[in-house]
Amino acid sequence: MRTDSPAAEPAAAFVDRHIGARAGAAETMLKAVGYDSLDSLADMAVPAAIRQANPLVLDPARSEEETLAQLRVIAGKNKTAVQMIGQGYYGTHTPPVILRNVVEDPAWYTAYTPYQPEISQGRLEALLNFQTMVQDLTALPIANASLLDEATAVAEAVLLMRRSNKSKANGAIVLDSEALPQTIAVVKGRAKALDFDVIVTDLANGLPDGDITGVVLQQPGVSGVVRDLGPVIAEAKERGALVTVAADLLALTLITPPGEQGADIAVGSVQRFGVPLFFGGPHAAYMAVRKGLERSLPGRLVGVSKDSAGTPAYRLALQTREQHIRREKATSNICTAQALLAIVASMYAVYHGPQGLTAIARRAHNSARTLATALQDAGIELLHDSFFDTVTARVPGKAAAIVAAAEARGINLRHIDADTVGVSCDETTTEAIIVDVAAAFGAPATSIAAAAEAVEGFTLDAQLLRSSEFMTHPVFHTHRSETQMLRYLRRLSDRDLALDRTMIPLGSCTMKLNATAEMQSMTWPEFASIHPFAPDSQTEGWRELIADLEAKLAVITGYDQVSIQPNAGSQGELAGLLAIRGYHHSRGETQRNVCLIPASAHGTNAASAVLAGMKVVVVATAGDGAIDHADLRAKIDAHRENLSAIMITYPSTHGVFDDDVRDVCDAVHEAGGQVYIDGANLNALVGLAQPGEFGGDVSHLNLHKTFCIPHGGGGPGVGPVAVKSHLAPFLPGDAATWTEGEDIPVSASRFGSAGVLPISWAYVNLMGGEGLTEATKSALLSANYVAARLNEYFPVLYTGRGGLVAHECILDLRGLTARTGVTAEDVAKRLVDYGFHAPTLSFPVAGTLMVEPTESEDLGEIDRFIDAMIAIRAEIDQVAAGDFSLEGSPLRNAPHTAVVVAGNEWDRAYPREQAAFPLASQRMDKYFPPVGRIDGAAGDRNLVCSCPPIEDFEN
Amino acid sequence: MRTDSPAAEPAAAFVDRHIGARAGAAETMLKAVGYDSLDSLADMAVPAAIRQANPLVLDPARSEEETLAQLRVIAGKNKTAVQMIGQGYYGTHTPPVILRNVVEDPAWYTAYTPYQPEISQGRLEALLNFQTMVQDLTALPIANASLLDEATAVAEAVLLMRRSNKSKANGAIVLDSEALPQTIAVVKGRAKALDFDVIVTDLANGLPDGDITGVVLQQPGVSGVVRDLGPVIAEAKERGALVTVAADLLALTLITPPGEQGADIAVGSVQRFGVPLFFGGPHAAYMAVRKGLERSLPGRLVGVSKDSAGTPAYRLALQTREQHIRREKATSNICTAQALLAIVASMYAVYHGPQGLTAIARRAHNSARTLATALQDAGIELLHDSFFDTVTARVPGKAAAIVAAAEARGINLRHIDADTVGVSCDETTTEAIIVDVAAAFGAPATSIAAAAEAVEGFTLDAQLLRSSEFMTHPVFHTHRSETQMLRYLRRLSDRDLALDRTMIPLGSCTMKLNATAEMQSMTWPEFASIHPFAPDSQTEGWRELIADLEAKLAVITGYDQVSIQPNAGSQGELAGLLAIRGYHHSRGETQRNVCLIPASAHGTNAASAVLAGMKVVVVATAGDGAIDHADLRAKIDAHRENLSAIMITYPSTHGVFDDDVRDVCDAVHEAGGQVYIDGANLNALVGLAQPGEFGGDVSHLNLHKTFCIPHGGGGPGVGPVAVKSHLAPFLPGDAATWTEGEDIPVSASRFGSAGVLPISWAYVNLMGGEGLTEATKSALLSANYVAARLNEYFPVLYTGRGGLVAHECILDLRGLTARTGVTAEDVAKRLVDYGFHAPTLSFPVAGTLMVEPTESEDLGEIDRFIDAMIAIRAEIDQVAAGDFSLEGSPLRNAPHTAVVVAGNEWDRAYPREQAAFPLASQRMDKYFPPVGRIDGAAGDRNLVCSCPPIEDFEN
Repeated sequence: MRTDSPAAEPAAAFVDRHIGARAGAAETMLKAVGYDSLDSLADMAVPAAIRQANPLVLDPARSEEETLAQLRVIAGKNKTAVQMIGQGYYGTHTPPVILRNVVEDPAWYTAYTPYQPEISQGRLEALLNFQTMVQDLTALPIANASLLDEATAVAEAVLLMRRSNKSKANGAIVLDSEALPQTIAVVKGRAKALDFDVIVTDLANGLPDGDITGVVLQQPGVSGVVRDLGPVIAEAKERGALVTVAADLLALTLITPPGEQGADIAVGSVQRFGVPLFFGGPHAAYMAVRKGLERSLPGRLVGVSKDSAGTPAYRLALQTREQHIRREKATSNICTAQALLAIVASMYAVYHGPQGLTAIARRAHNSARTLATALQDAGIELLHDSFFDTVTARVPGKAAAIVAAAEARGINLRHIDADTVGVSCDETTTEAIIVDVAAAFGAPATSIAAAAEAVEGFTLDAQLLRSSEFMTHPVFHTHRSETQMLRYLRRLSDRDLALDRTMIPLGSCTMKLNATAEMQSMTWPEFASIHPFAPDSQTEGWRELIADLEAKLAVITGYDQVSIQPNAGSQGELAGLLAIRGYHHSRGETQRNVCLIPASAHGTNAASAVLAGMKVVVVATAGDGAIDHADLRAKIDAHRENLSAIMITYPSTHGVFDDDVRDVCDAVHEAGGQVYIDGANLNALVGLAQPGEFGGDVSHLNLHKTFCIPHGGGGPGVGPVAVKSHLAPFLPGDAATWTEGEDIPVSASRFGSAGVLPISWAYVNLMGGEGLTEATKSALLSANYVAARLNEYFPVLYTGRGGLVAHECILDLRGLTARTGVTAEDVAKRLVDYGFHAPTLSFPVAGTLMVEPTESEDLGEIDRFIDAMIAIRAEIDQVAAGDFSLEGSPLRNAPHTAVVVAGNEWDRAYPREQAAFPLASQRMDKYFPPVGRIDGAAGDRNLVCSCPPIEDFEN
Repeated sequence: MRTDSPAAEPAAAFVDRHIGARAGAAETMLKAVGYDSLDSLADMAVPAAIRQANPLVLDPARSEEETLAQLRVIAGKNKTAVQMIGQGYYGTHTPPVILRNVVEDPAWYTAYTPYQPEISQGRLEALLNFQTMVQDLTALPIANASLLDEATAVAEAVLLMRRSNKSKANGAIVLDSEALPQTIAVVKGRAKALDFDVIVTDLANGLPDGDITGVVLQQPGVSGVVRDLGPVIAEAKERGALVTVAADLLALTLITPPGEQGADIAVGSVQRFGVPLFFGGPHAAYMAVRKGLERSLPGRLVGVSKDSAGTPAYRLALQTREQHIRREKATSNICTAQALLAIVASMYAVYHGPQGLTAIARRAHNSARTLATALQDAGIELLHDSFFDTVTARVPGKAAAIVAAAEARGINLRHIDADTVGVSCDETTTEAIIVDVAAAFGAPATSIAAAAEAVEGFTLDAQLLRSSEFMTHPVFHTHRSETQMLRYLRRLSDRDLALDRTMIPLGSCTMKLNATAEMQSMTWPEFASIHPFAPDSQTEGWRELIADLEAKLAVITGYDQVSIQPNAGSQGELAGLLAIRGYHHSRGETQRNVCLIPASAHGTNAASAVLAGMKVVVVATAGDGAIDHADLRAKIDAHRENLSAIMITYPSTHGVFDDDVRDVCDAVHEAGGQVYIDGANLNALVGLAQPGEFGGDVSHLNLHKTFCIPHGGGGPGVGPVAVKSHLAPFLPGDAATWTEGEDIPVSASRFGSAGVLPISWAYVNLMGGEGLTEATKSALLSANYVAARLNEYFPVLYTGRGGLVAHECILDLRGLTARTGVTAEDVAKRLVDYGFHAPTLSFPVAGTLMVEPTESEDLGEIDRFIDAMIAIRAEIDQVAAGDFSLEGSPLRNAPHTAVVVAGNEWDRAYPREQAAFPLASQRMDKYFPPVGRIDGAAGDRNLVCSCPPIEDFEN
C-alpha cells in the first residue's frame, strides 16, 4: 500500500504541534537571520567537521493516538500486584485531588526551579511545607527540599559526616546491617571512588573498634525491627562519631524521632507519602540536620526572607554553597531535586495533617500486628517482636513456596532467602489482603479473626513511642476538605509563572513543550504501581520500554550503550566519570585521576569529578569562549601520566559551536585520557551531530532538557549516561544485587527515575528521526532569530561561524551596567512585569543573560519577548537620560505587585501603567507577582527554613 | 472479621473530604444558629409530617480507592472496538491537550453557567468561537451555543418552524426518510404530545401534497448519501415551507453548506469534533438560523457588548426570550446547554483550523472511497456513488455474517437489515482498519491496495463541493502548536471564576464539590469510547452501572423506577409530564391537560408543560412564599375534569419547607390529578424525606445539582425522571427502536448523557446512605448559618418553622434599594471585587439575592463570604451617609479591573485599595475580572454573535 495514500496522512503531525514556528513563521525568522532555509542555516551554524553523515534512523514518527496505543500495549505487559516487598518502597494512595491538580497539572509540572523567587512563591511555599514536615517528624531543626532517593541521601549524609567531623576525618563509616541493601551498595560505591572505609555491622554487637567518622543507622531496620537507637547513638557520640539515622517518616509519627535520640542527621524517602511506586522512582528523599550543620547541607533549601515591601517571602537559601558556585569545593554535586514529588508528599501531609498521618501509620502497624499474631498462632516464628509495619518470618526451606503462593494471589512478598520472608504493610493493606497473605503462609483464615481481636495487646515498647507533637503549624490543620485542598493548590500555582503561561527562555535549561500525550501514561496504574523489586515476570513492559529508550538514545548520540539509571544530570556525570575511573583501573592505570575542566564549565562538572575521586585541573578559555588550546596542551603535558579525562560541554556553555572540538578530543585521547562530553546542550545537536561520533567516550544527557521530561519546579530529572563500548562494562550496576565490582551503582533503584521515562519514550516515538532533527534546526533558528533581533539593543557576547550562535545566546549587559548602573538582575526582574520568566542570569558569564527560546516557542511569543526586551532597553535609556534615577526606575523597583500599582499612594517618577501594563496585551491577562523583589542576603544572614507563623503575613 | 478492626478504618473517610464543615466548625455554626446538634436542627427544619421513617439503605460507603477499583471492574465489562456504526456518532481523537486542560481541568468543569459575564469572559469567548465556527460552516449568520443532542435539536427546529411560519401554521412537518432514526422518533414523540402531523418521506419522490409548515432534510443522509438539496429546498420555499437541514459539520468543510442552498435553519451534532462517544452523550448540538429568526432561537446565545470602559466584552444575549423569563410563552424549555462539550468542539476547531478540519474530512472521505472502491471491485453493490464518509452496501442475506466477521476483528459496523450493512469512516480510520472491514465483506486485501491507488478519480459531483471560505477569523489560525493551545486554554480559564478558586453560592444551583475521584473515570477509554449502538455484549459494564444508579436514585427519592435518559433538567421535566400525559391517555382521560403551576415556580416548569401539550394554570403564592391554599382549591375546582397535574418544587423555590405539602398532594390526587415534584431542591431532602413517599407521583432530579456532576460552565446536565410504578410504563423509550407507543423518548440516545453518570454513581458509592444524609444536614446548617449571620445586614425574606430556612436563603435587598438606590445587581458585581461569584440574582424574587452555600464549603470560606457581605453592607451605608454618591460608589462601579485600579488616573471618591483589595486576604492572591460591568441592553440592541475583529480590542 502506498505510504502517501490519503488515509495515511495525519491531519496534523505531532512535529507541527511540538515546534512553535512552522511554515510562514519560520520563513520570517530565516529572513531576519539572513538564510533561505533551515538547512542552509544549520549547515552554516554546525561545523561540517562534526556533522553526522547520515540522518537518524529511528522508528518512523507516530501520531499521538498511535503512541498512546503503543504505550497501552507496553503497559499491559506489566502486571499490577499488591506490593508488600517493602525494602524502602511501599504502597500508598495518592489522593486524587493531588494527582490531578499537581502531578497531572501543567501549572505545577512545567514550572522551572525556583531560582527566580518572585514568580515561584507557590512552589516555594509547598517546599517549605515539606521542610517543616521533615523537621517536625525527625525533630531536627533544618531540612532540605529535597534529595534524589534514600540511598544517595545516605551517601550524601556520609560525605557530610566526613566533611564535618574534622577530628575523626580518617575514621571509618559504620553502616548498620539493618540498612537497606541498596543503601549499603551505593555507600560502598562512593567509598570505592573516594577511598574510605565502610564497615557494615550488626549493632547488636555494638560499634566496632577503631576510629569512627560516622555511623549510619536504619529505623525501622530493613527486617522491620524497631530498636531503641538511644544507646548506640550515645556510644557513637561519646567516641567522637557523627550519627545519621535513615528513618521512615511514617514510622516517626509513632516512634521516637532521631533528633530526640541525639542523631546529627536524618535521611530517608518520602515515597510512601502519596508518591506512586513508579518502578523505583522518581521519589523524593529528605535530609534534616541539627543546628550547626545547615551550611553543609547538600541540595536545595528554602528559606524565608522579606520582599521590598517588607512582606515575608520565600527563596532558595544559602545558594552560595551549591555546586554551581563552589565548583570543586562544593558540598555535593546535587543540582536537580525531586521538587514535584516533594510537593506531592508535602501536600499529602497537608491534606492528612498529623492526625491523619498518625492514623495511616497506626493502620499499617495494626495490619502488621494482625498478621504477626496470626502467623505466630499458626506456629510460624517471627524474627522480631518489635516492628512497625514489616513482619519477617523464619520459614525454613519454604520461602520460595510461600512467595509463590502469595504471588498466585496477586501479592508480592519479600523473598529474603530460602528460609526467610518479609511482609510490609501500608495504608493500602486491607483485611482481605492480610487473609490472603496468611493463607500463603498456611495460616488459617480463622486465625486472622482471632488475631484482629487480640491485636490491642501487642504493641511497641513504651520507650520507643513518640510523645512529642509535630506538624503544629496551621497549614497542616487547614486544608481538610477536597474543596479546600483544590483551592490551596490552585492558589499556590497561580502565584507562579510556568510554561503554561509564558515562555521560559532559560539558557542551558531547554524549557520546551512537555506534551500532554507524553505525560499521560506516567500515572497509569500499570506503570505507576510497580514495585522496583517486583519479579521480572511482572515488569516485562517496563523493561521493554527502558531497553528501547536506551537503544534509541544510543542511536541519537552515536554511543554504543546507554544506562538510564542516573536520576539527575549530576548523577549522570558521576556515573560517567566512575565509568572512566573503572576503565582506567581495569587497565591498571589507577594513577590516572586528573580531570581537565574548562573554566567556563558548569560548576557541577567539577563537583562530580571530585565525587568520582578525581583531581580537577582547570583549562583556560579564550576570549571567544572556546577552550584555550595552548593552555590545554600545557595542562595535558603537565598531567600526561595522570590524565584521566577532560569534561567539555558541546556546544559550549557560551552557546557556540567550536570548530575544533575534534582536535581537543584527539589531544586528550593521544595522552591516554578519556573524553567526557556534557550533554546539557544536546538540544543543539540531535540529528545533526553525535558526541559519540565526534570524539566523546562518554556523555550524560538530560532527559529533562532535550527529551521533554518537565522540570517539575525543580525535578525530577533523568541523566542517562551514554558510552562507547569500551566503557560499557563500567556502567552503573543494580544496587540491589551489586557485588562490589567496577559497575558502581549511582542510584537506589536499578532504573532510577523509571516513572518518567515514558515521557521521553513518547517524545522520540512521536517525532521520529526526521522530526527530532527538524526540532534541532528550529531551536537553532529561534536562538539565532533572537540574537539577530536583539543584538543592537543588547550585544550578543559570543558567536561562531557566520556570526551565528547555537541554540542559545548570551546577551551582554555589562556595558549598559557600567554606563547606567542597571544590572542584568534588574532586567530579569523587570521582565516579570512584562509577564516573562527571566532568562538564565549571570551564567556562564556574570552580568549577562542567556536566552534559549527552544523550538517549541512560536514566533508570536518570541516577538513578544523581543518587544519586551526592546522596551526594557528603552527604559534603560531613560535612566541614562535622567528621566528617572536608577533607584527610582521601574527597573530597580521591579517586579511590581498588584498591591504596589493599585496602592493608594504613588510617588514614583514613572506612571502606574508603565509599571503594571508595559505591553498592551497585558491589560486583560496580567500576571502580578505576589511579592516584590526579595532581599536574598537578609534571608541568608537570618536563616529561617520552616513555615513562618501566620501572623507574620498580617500587615 | 470485625468490621471495626483497625485495618478497616480509612485514614479519612470521603464524607469528611466532601463536607466542608466538620467537627469543631460544625459546632461553631450550630451555636450561631442556636442548636446543639445537626439532628436537632434537621428535626426542627424539616417538617415531621414528611420525614422519612427509616434511614437510607444503600451500599456502605466506600473509599476513593475502593470506588475507583470498583469502577475499573465495571469499565472492564465494556469492550472497546473500532466504531464504524455511524448514525450520528463517529470516532474522533480528542487532542490530549484539550482532554487534560478542559475536560479534566476543574477550572473549566467546575465553572457555572455564564450568567455573570464579567467573571465568565473565558468560557464566553470559547462559546463565541463555537458559534462562529457553526455560522461559518453552515453559512448561516446566527448560531447558538448549544443544544443537547441532534435529535432534540431537530425537534427544537421543528417547533421553531411551527412558531415562525404563521402562514402555514397548521401544515405538516415533512421529515426526510434519510434522517437519523432517533431524530425521527424524537420528532414524532413531540408531535404526539403537541398534536401535529409528521410525514416521513423519501425525497426522491418529491415533497408530499398538502400544506407544509416545515421540511427537515439530512445531509449527508443516514445511509451516507450526499444529495444536492438545492432543488427540494427551492420547492419547499416556493410552497411556503421553512427548511431545516440537519448537517454534519465535518462534511460541511467539503460540501455546499445549507445556508448557501437556502435553508432557514441548520442543526446537528458536533460530537465528532473531539468529543468522545461516551455511549451516546453528553455531546453538543448546534443550531444556526438565517437572519430574522434569531430572536426565536432556543438555547443560549453569546453576544458581544461593551464594558463600562468601552472594551468589547461577551455576554449571554437575548436572555429575555429564555424560558425562565417567558415561562409558558417561552421559545423552548431548554436551560442547560452542553457548554463543556461545545467548548471541546470549539477548541478542536481552533486547534485544527479550517485547513486541519478539511484535512480530517478528506481523510474520512478518502477512507470511505478506498473502501467503496474495494467493495465494488469485489463485486459488492453499494447504495450510493455520492457519499461523504459512510458507505452502505447491499449484501443480500449476508448482513449478519459480515457484521459478525467485523466484530470478530474488533470493528463495529451498522447492521441496517438482513441485506444491508453501513460503514462510517472518520479521522481514526486507518488503512489497517479498511483492510479488516473489506475482509469482513470478503473483499481481498489486494483490492485495497488497488483501491487506494484508484481513489483519486472517485469523488463528489462538482455542484456538491463547497467553494466558500470558512473560519477566517484569526482565532482559528493562531493556536497551532500545543504550547500555544495550552496557553490559550489557561488564559481563558484564568479570566473566569470557578469552584476551584471560590465558593459559588448560587441558590437553587447547588454548586458543591465535584470530587476528583468522581471525575476520573469518565475519560477512561472503556467508558468514553463506546458507541451508543454498540452490541449489548460490549456494553455490559455501562448497563450495570446505569441500572445500579437508577436503582439507588429510586431508593433515595422513594420512587419505584427511574430513567436517566433526560439529558438536562428541562428534559426531565418534559419526560415526567409526558409520563403523566401517557398515564391519563392510557386511562382514556385524554381531556386531562391542565397543569397547575405556582406563581413562584421556575419558568422552565411552565415551558415544559406547554411542550408536553398541557395548558398552564397559575396558582397564587401567599405572602410567606407558600402555595395559597384557597387559590389552589379554587383552581382545582375550576379545572377538576381537566386536571392533569400540579408541578411543585420542594422545598419551595423560596428556600423553605412548607408544612403542608402532603395536603397539597392529597387535594390534587383527590381531583384525579398527578403530582409532579420538581427535584431542583433535592439537596435539602436526601436521607431526610422522599418526594415519592410524601405525595409525588413523579419527580425529576438534577444530577448536576444534588449528585455532583459539575456544571461545566453551563452543561452537561442530567435530569433523571423518577416515578411511582403506575407511571413506569410511560418512562421514555429508546429513540432508536421506539414504536410510537406512550413511552415517548426525550433524547437521541437511550441513556442520554451516559458519559457523566459515573460521577454520580461514584458520589453515591463514596458517601453511602449515612454520608448522603449527613451532607443534607450539613447543607441545612450552612444555609441557616448564613441566614443567621446575615439577617441583621440583609433581611432573610422567607423562613419556616423555628425561623429556619432549608438549604438556601433569600436576602432581601429591596428596602436598601429603596433607601439608597443600591441594587442587588450592584451587590452581585461588587462581590466580584471581593473575589466571589455572585449568588442567584433576582430569582425567585426580583431585587433579592438567593444564597446556597452547600455542604461542601468550609467555615472559613463561608465566613469570608459573610465578611464580604457585611463589608458591602457598610459600603451601602456609606452611600446612605453621603460619603460618596451612588454613581460614584464602589458598588455601582463594580467590578473593578486591574486596568482601572492601576490606571494613571483616579478621581473616585473612594481609595484605590478599597476598590482593589477590600479584604486583606486578597493582597497576594487577587482575582481581577478582565472587564468591567457589561452593558447588557446595548448588546441586545445591536446583536453581534460571532467573534469580533481583533482590532476592536485595540484601545
